[in-house]
Amino acid sequence: MSDVLLSERDMAFLLDDWLGLETHLAAIGSDTDRETVSQYLDLSAKLAADRFLTHYKKSDHEEPRLENGRVRVLPEVGEALREFAELGLFSASFPAELGGMGLPYLVTSASYAWFAAANGASVGYAMLTGANARLIAAFGSEAQRDRFALPQIEGRWFGTMCLSEPQAGSSLGDIRTRAVPDGSDEFGDRYRLTGNKMWISGGDQDISENIVHLVLAKVPGEDGALPEGTEGISLFIVPKILPDGVHNDIAVAGLNHKMGNRGTSNCLLNFGEGEGATGWIVGKPGQGLAQMFMMMNEARVAVGLGAASLACRGYLLARDYAKERLQGRAPGVRDGTPVAIVDHADIKRMLIAAKAYSEGSLALCLYAAKLVDEKANPESTALLDLLTPVVKTYPSEFGRLANDLAIQVHGGYGYTRDFDVEQLYRDNRLNPIHEGTTGIQAGDLLGRKILGRGAGGFDIFSKRAEEAASRAADNPDLAAHGSALADAIGNLEETIVSLKALDPARRLDNSALFLEAFGHVVLAWLWLEQALAASSMIAADEESRAFAAGKIAACRYYFEVELPKSQHLLALVGGGSTAAASLGAEIF
Amino acid sequence: MSDVLLSERDMAFLLDDWLGLETHLAAIGSDTDRETVSQYLDLSAKLAADRFLTHYKKSDHEEPRLENGRVRVLPEVGEALREFAELGLFSASFPAELGGMGLPYLVTSASYAWFAAANGASVGYAMLTGANARLIAAFGSEAQRDRFALPQIEGRWFGTMCLSEPQAGSSLGDIRTRAVPDGSDEFGDRYRLTGNKMWISGGDQDISENIVHLVLAKVPGEDGALPEGTEGISLFIVPKILPDGVHNDIAVAGLNHKMGNRGTSNCLLNFGEGEGATGWIVGKPGQGLAQMFMMMNEARVAVGLGAASLACRGYLLARDYAKERLQGRAPGVRDGTPVAIVDHADIKRMLIAAKAYSEGSLALCLYAAKLVDEKANPESTALLDLLTPVVKTYPSEFGRLANDLAIQVHGGYGYTRDFDVEQLYRDNRLNPIHEGTTGIQAGDLLGRKILGRGAGGFDIFSKRAEEAASRAADNPDLAAHGSALADAIGNLEETIVSLKALDPARRLDNSALFLEAFGHVVLAWLWLEQALAASSMIAADEESRAFAAGKIAACRYYFEVELPKSQHLLALVGGGSTAAASLGAEIF
Repeated sequence: MSDVLLSERDMAFLLDDWLGLETHLAAIGSDTDRETVSQYLDLSAKLAADRFLTHYKKSDHEEPRLENGRVRVLPEVGEALREFAELGLFSASFPAELGGMGLPYLVTSASYAWFAAANGASVGYAMLTGANARLIAAFGSEAQRDRFALPQIEGRWFGTMCLSEPQAGSSLGDIRTRAVPDGSDEFGDRYRLTGNKMWISGGDQDISENIVHLVLAKVPGEDGALPEGTEGISLFIVPKILPDGVHNDIAVAGLNHKMGNRGTSNCLLNFGEGEGATGWIVGKPGQGLAQMFMMMNEARVAVGLGAASLACRGYLLARDYAKERLQGRAPGVRDGTPVAIVDHADIKRMLIAAKAYSEGSLALCLYAAKLVDEKANPESTALLDLLTPVVKTYPSEFGRLANDLAIQVHGGYGYTRDFDVEQLYRDNRLNPIHEGTTGIQAGDLLGRKILGRGAGGFDIFSKRAEEAASRAADNPDLAAHGSALADAIGNLEETIVSLKALDPARRLDNSALFLEAFGHVVLAWLWLEQALAASSMIAADEESRAFAAGKIAACRYYFEVELPKSQHLLALVGGGSTAAASLGAEIF
Repeated sequence: MSDVLLSERDMAFLLDDWLGLETHLAAIGSDTDRETVSQYLDLSAKLAADRFLTHYKKSDHEEPRLENGRVRVLPEVGEALREFAELGLFSASFPAELGGMGLPYLVTSASYAWFAAANGASVGYAMLTGANARLIAAFGSEAQRDRFALPQIEGRWFGTMCLSEPQAGSSLGDIRTRAVPDGSDEFGDRYRLTGNKMWISGGDQDISENIVHLVLAKVPGEDGALPEGTEGISLFIVPKILPDGVHNDIAVAGLNHKMGNRGTSNCLLNFGEGEGATGWIVGKPGQGLAQMFMMMNEARVAVGLGAASLACRGYLLARDYAKERLQGRAPGVRDGTPVAIVDHADIKRMLIAAKAYSEGSLALCLYAAKLVDEKANPESTALLDLLTPVVKTYPSEFGRLANDLAIQVHGGYGYTRDFDVEQLYRDNRLNPIHEGTTGIQAGDLLGRKILGRGAGGFDIFSKRAEEAASRAADNPDLAAHGSALADAIGNLEETIVSLKALDPARRLDNSALFLEAFGHVVLAWLWLEQALAASSMIAADEESRAFAAGKIAACRYYFEVELPKSQHLLALVGGGSTAAASLGAEIF
């Protein structure tokens, strides 16, 4: 494998030199060994390059289309996913009793990164299917699990999550899909569903034998009215084809045509145009949102990882282009042969920024994946809870900046569809929107995880970051960064104190600025961690020395150029800036 | 006209209340009156909405295509441009002796903004044609002017600029197109041209009767070798169809397929696949780059204005959507009807940022257009020279941020091709690349205009900005902004002093950061100017009061949130940060 998708070297560094994969496997009681992990990741990288990357352009150009009420997808997407299933990749993360390999989340995340770098739209079907099956396995009855989760774990059926409605995107309490009791059978209490669901990725396709929709809906009270707010939301299993082989009452009302990520079909589904779509409730009425959040949290980490993978591939393409493309000369030199553009200071600036954003994003997502594996440890769970909005958002926002810079390094060529960087940029534009927009993540971070009940995570974060800062104190290259990180954490703490002194109704006004600033501090911490790990590596050859120097250079760049940006943002947050929130609608 | 393209109110404010259009017309000795300007702008707004906006989506979807060696463009593009010609819009900016209306550049720029907001790709043909004709009129012989410029001024022929080659984009000194003397005739010294020209917008199309290519090439010396560097560049008029009706030796070797701005065909042209393409030199050998720079400077202001117009339209679409879309409730409120999303603090944040970037960009470009009109005043010329890289870059970079925010305000809908905001975002991605990338502009600003020969412009800028700051001192709402602006200028001056103390070979290493910081200071100044003008308006009604309050709010936002970002950037520049420039290629 070349670096055509991701850097193998970086992945090995993150997993082994930094995150200590072998120790991790032992600590979480996994019976997987490092050799098995290597084989699995090699297989993933090869399959991603051979079967997913190969139709990356084509699946963008030949979008899913609606024919006679059914969605047709480019055949190559289905072929790739069938091979993905045959090689056991759908089931890899599931325990042996569900037919899986029981691989830790850190390992399946590393695998997912290769596919997301190659073709995030195609592997998106598998990501949603795994999350769907995991939710049914966790909360469904045994009969539901066997009937609806197992075929997904085998990769024969695919799954979706049906949350949004045309009038209710971020505000799920306002959904209007109605579920009316309709008896019960071996799969539990049966309902008839009626309503419209918007933005359903994989909502229809012609790849899998069946589609399992997990649908949020409300059960009307005795007066026929739907309960208000999110407490009234329940979760239903609504298959495209019912167990008796009959097509369920689900119609594809439309296909959304997106700017990017086009290989994943995205549908408006009408449930119950006739007598109502048949569905079975998962658990009890009113538990729907809490259950769905398990799937959404998994999806949010996956979105971050997908965004990070797009960013990493863009960086590598830009780096390779910059080393090959000859143009211009050093300042003051007028004659002679043009130099590779990587020698120009402004190209170096763009590359080191792209490297810092993209590799930093990947490190963040893998760190979070490790926390997912450590679910027996309350400290890890609390830290994951805190970091999830950052994991979702930082790669979506700053990873896109890396994709933007990758276009700029390519000049005019980067703006053409002959090169992949423009598609990476379009594909990545989705990520700040779906699974909770950046604004929603910002409110979640500040409202719930910093100022609300989940606030314990912050102390764990600051303890770990300060521990890294103190390790850096003995390293002449990194000591100043350690001090800067400690200062930045102090700055965060002061900002939180200031926030608590504000009118409660105004504390979230600048939550997006807080999320951005907090993201910079988290990334600075993780860059310091990487630089510490790189410093302690024994570099056996030139290439290894250059790799370690690259990590230390990106860390330095982050501390010198990016981290200081948090100060101004935190001053606005702590000072309760009303520059935006005080404005009346009429002034726009 | 509604605000579907641009805000009529804002345009009138900028032209009359701020830039003092009537006084300006008198000062530059124009015989155009305000009433004529109004009619012209009303006509432009109407034509833009009725004939250009109407095929905005279609010309994106149905790109130009190559058929039998010729480029076919969507018929609607040609129909719109023919009406544009019939109404005299091609000739409007030219003097009466060339068949034009002699309208000032400020007025034609305001007109252009409407078309760029409606369909920048379609009006792009006209922009290039006007710039081409102006160049021939300025430097060509009378025979060249009559033969090649006049049909363009009438809008019957279109023009292109052929600079880049596949191996020479930013580095024009490395072009290899060869021009060999071939006698002379009524149009001057004739040459035969051989070479490949890349990224030629409008390089071929089936709209105009003929195409006038202005081509940069080199005349070989007696040893047959091409002269090195930019001094050896000459400029040639190379028409698609020669005066005797014969097709010139120019072949369309390929059509570039772009991410956006697709309505403008973009070609690789081969000149001289046979005996050489026939061309006539403009002026003398070696003058080509200096002549072309006249066209490039005009094109750079036009690029900035185009970017600003895309940004403004995106802002208006987002604003309208935010006022209509109901979703969520105020913090702490759980029941009742959802509110318009414009009431959420995070949506206000995005809207005020988009307003500040987009209206600020438009103000910047119109200010520059006014300077173009004042060419008799050396102070205006020097200031325009200084500001041109900012005019090209700020709207291209921060206007895109406005487009990005417009998508985010729309949520998932913004990511679909059913809404225009995604296309505005794709279209605007071109602007930091063509007519000199952001990196090239940054080097031009810092190397030539701040530290080099053109440095006089900075003193004029600081004098004007400080004058605005002192006017603000008497205004209780704006006095603090005035002080902040004076401080920011002091900060710029200190940075320049620090830069001069650095090793000359390293002074441009962080030029992109300097350009970004300088852009913030320039925009802060222009926002203060706008707020001062808005403060002195007599608001006759609610709507006028809201408009003025909006200008003052955007000014406050700029000073509170954006301007302070320049401090950190300038500290990096003045400190000679080597975080990027010191890196070896091997660490990437």
